Amino acid sequence: MDDDAFQDRYPEELSHCYGCGRLNPDGLQLKSYWDGDETVARFRPRSNHTAVPGYVYGGLLASLIDCHGTGSASAAAARAHRGQAPPRFVTASLHVDYLRPTPIDAELEIRGVIKELKEKKVVVSATVSADGVVCARGEVVAVRMPESMLQR
Amino acid sequence: MDDDAFQDRYPEELSHCYGCGRLNPDGLQLKSYWDGDETVARFRPRSNHTAVPGYVYGGLLASLIDCHGTGSASAAAARAHRGQAPPRFVTASLHVDYLRPTPIDAELEIRGVIKELKEKKVVVSATVSADGVVCARGEVVAVRMPESMLQR
Repeated sequence: MDDDAFQDRYPEELSHCYGCGRLNPDGLQLKSYWDGDETVARFRPRSNHTAVPGYVYGGLLASLIDCHGTGSASAAAARAHRGQAPPRFVTASLHVDYLRPTPIDAELEIRGVIKELKEKKVVVSATVSADGVVCARGEVVAVRMPESMLQR
Repeated sequence: MDDDAFQDRYPEELSHCYGCGRLNPDGLQLKSYWDGDETVARFRPRSNHTAVPGYVYGGLLASLIDCHGTGSASAAAARAHRGQAPPRFVTASLHVDYLRPTPIDAELEIRGVIKELKEKKVVVSATVSADGVVCARGEVVAVRMPESMLQR
């Protein structure tokens, strides 16, 4: 794995995301890395991330897949155009299949595979596993962030 | 609208969800209600629910649609079988299309429509609007919670 998390390469003004921004002290601070041609992140749920007691709520898993997906899209675009600063992607669509209840007391592994890579659109499929068992499977369609989002 | 939120009818042991449990003090505590044949919830994002500054992160919207969907499924099942305690549903799959950036400084309205109602499976489509503009659209396939989830 590379040393530098994808999300830590975002410029300061784009590093406040609740799911993955290094400058959001209350957030999840997800960190994603290359592992060969796949991408990987690890996350330990907090005790209040409950669904039914003992299991993780679905919104957290959606959030992990979402931020891992846009981070992977950014890294894949940067890898395809070496020397270019990693562009920021945002989510056009997100799909999650919850295959089985996800235990709250395990470290989760989120793995991504780049399914499609175009200049303005990247599709990333992802799994979330606990103790080596895939609990959720998802797909993120990520699109290049429009400049207008920075004008607000 | 009825006075009683769907999520406030869940029994105590099923009321710890980060997204909608009344007994999760750190969570979002989403409250959903009937509005005719549709369901509705309102939620004001916290200032740290950022994506790019000024906008809400995608995981929050996924979470709102998810918990509004399972809550709507529970209420629809109870309405179809009057007298029955509202059964708890969990998410089998979740899909979200992010149509435009969602402002963080607006109250969000989540609206649900019951698309399919079977004893063990309910499909709910949902929109999230800010200031009357639909920002995200989603679908939740909810299934009756297996008894085994309470055994952990």
